[in-house]
Amino acid sequence: MKIAVDAMGGDYAPEEIVLGAIDAVKTYKYDVVLVGDQDRIREVMAQYGATESNRLTIVQASQVIEMGEHPAQAIRKKKDASIVVATKLVKQGECDAVVAPGSTGAAVTAALLGLGRIPGIERPSIATPIPSKEGITVLLDSGANANSKPKHLVEGAIMGYHYAKYILGISNPTVGLLNIGEEDSKGNEVAQATYPLLEKLKTISFYGNVEGRDIPEGTVDVVVCDGFVGNVILKFGEGMALFIIRLVKDTIKESGFIAKLGALAVLPVLKALKKRLDYTEYGGAPLLGVNGSFIICHGSSKAKAIKNAIRVAGELVEQDVVGHIRSSMEEERVEEYGNES
Amino acid sequence: MKIAVDAMGGDYAPEEIVLGAIDAVKTYKYDVVLVGDQDRIREVMAQYGATESNRLTIVQASQVIEMGEHPAQAIRKKKDASIVVATKLVKQGECDAVVAPGSTGAAVTAALLGLGRIPGIERPSIATPIPSKEGITVLLDSGANANSKPKHLVEGAIMGYHYAKYILGISNPTVGLLNIGEEDSKGNEVAQATYPLLEKLKTISFYGNVEGRDIPEGTVDVVVCDGFVGNVILKFGEGMALFIIRLVKDTIKESGFIAKLGALAVLPVLKALKKRLDYTEYGGAPLLGVNGSFIICHGSSKAKAIKNAIRVAGELVEQDVVGHIRSSMEEERVEEYGNES
Repeated sequence: MKIAVDAMGGDYAPEEIVLGAIDAVKTYKYDVVLVGDQDRIREVMAQYGATESNRLTIVQASQVIEMGEHPAQAIRKKKDASIVVATKLVKQGECDAVVAPGSTGAAVTAALLGLGRIPGIERPSIATPIPSKEGITVLLDSGANANSKPKHLVEGAIMGYHYAKYILGISNPTVGLLNIGEEDSKGNEVAQATYPLLEKLKTISFYGNVEGRDIPEGTVDVVVCDGFVGNVILKFGEGMALFIIRLVKDTIKESGFIAKLGALAVLPVLKALKKRLDYTEYGGAPLLGVNGSFIICHGSSKAKAIKNAIRVAGELVEQDVVGHIRSSMEEERVEEYGNES
Repeated sequence: MKIAVDAMGGDYAPEEIVLGAIDAVKTYKYDVVLVGDQDRIREVMAQYGATESNRLTIVQASQVIEMGEHPAQAIRKKKDASIVVATKLVKQGECDAVVAPGSTGAAVTAALLGLGRIPGIERPSIATPIPSKEGITVLLDSGANANSKPKHLVEGAIMGYHYAKYILGISNPTVGLLNIGEEDSKGNEVAQATYPLLEKLKTISFYGNVEGRDIPEGTVDVVVCDGFVGNVILKFGEGMALFIIRLVKDTIKESGFIAKLGALAVLPVLKALKKRLDYTEYGGAPLLGVNGSFIICHGSSKAKAIKNAIRVAGELVEQDVVGHIRSSMEEERVEEYGNES
């Protein structure tokens, strides 16, 4: 199995991406194809004492899509952009999955144009694993769509279910609809229209409405919401975690603990906490609903995050998550739900 | 000045409400009128060695609105509900502000029907103070409206500005629009339509778009969003804070700190952290836009939260926040913005 990695994407490209790929090839059975400026990539590989092999290869791409660019325009204009070339490798069957660090907009556009959608899926969703009391809660859509319709949330429920089942290994994942109250009459127009559609599904277990606090509580395995809300929550959660860790640090300092025990005694506690809250441990967020395995990584991804994303990309292919979503969609006929709201 | 307190609202009524009122009268210059079942209230007062005085009085109300009831139906049916009677005291000029613990829906309905709205305001908003790196970020609407239109977000921006200025004492508060990117073209339909309206305002400082992470960062003083998003964020944040505090506790325990130092040494650290994240310190959330001073408290409010809410209610009246919002609304003519989206 071969994973195509956009070596030029994100804030730390190509150094951290290449380093992550070198580590992944050592640790996992998946081969990696680094896509981007081959001279730069070779340079970085040499720095880390790595060379091209039949398990770690390079495919040249002369262009890069920058963080500030308009995604759709950039993807259409830059035919030789690393993310476009990486996606094409999967489309042509030369690779099995894409790992894309960096601009979410560009990655979503490249995947949509390059791979197309699974039949019946109108809007792919980004599924983000969030740490919770019970382990992990999957939140989707966490930013692929700014304006989701009820039908798109139903698609999200089906896709999130299969991701939780086959990648997180939960035998019968529960799926909740994010809302502002438990009763089925609660919520905004989209949530109210989505509830009865989710109740009708045959291939997944719909739990009912959940509230914001149920995400860290881990009340359900999968939480479905529109992409605007999901993105805001995700970024709020990241900010909150950083803020609270700083508070803990400051509070410990002010209490005189550092003075008494030395920084060395307190730091492991904070480190363990950070690790538990660190999204990079979970290996990126799959873009579900496109016709291929596609992982989007945070723009600030470092080697460890890339390495984990390569692992999850391999698992997506092995577990045939795309195939399971396709079967569910055939059975559910979500496309007949229309666009009422 | 007299604050009417719904003594029967929330999970710990009337005990904690009465206790909070007794404390408030001792600490602050504001008088308190406890509204509810007078026998029960007198019983609780006696328990705590308090008696009625010209600073702490009781007004009888024979009915209570329970947490599960449909707000609008319950308010219309139960004419002698404590929250309805408390609101009426303000309407009739016998009291200056309401403190309402418990069901948000019932409180909002009672305020709307009992006090009406400030001219030009179509939808009152709940403003919730959230702890941030810079002190406090005000989030509104945090749950009064499930479906906010651009005009309602503009109203929220104006109201949040005056709350931050006159209650939090920030001389020229900045107001940001919650969105999923910084560029003005970003976001869902509501956010995109709201941005140019906020730019036109003359009486407040519009900062531009902010993202989820800017709330704990404290990038701006006031964050405006629709009530669905605000409510989800608020509850997610509460859940996250509890989850992380538990993680800290567990991590410290596992590291052997407890064994080495004894629980007594570690507990103050956690306590200080909890205090900083504790919404009850901030004294409830004002319902802005109704024609009177009205504070909504969490259903789980205990005495300290009630006491702080009574203080903030008094400040709302003293600072004439309602008057400032009224003047801004007259100048801005938001009602001419129409209902495009």
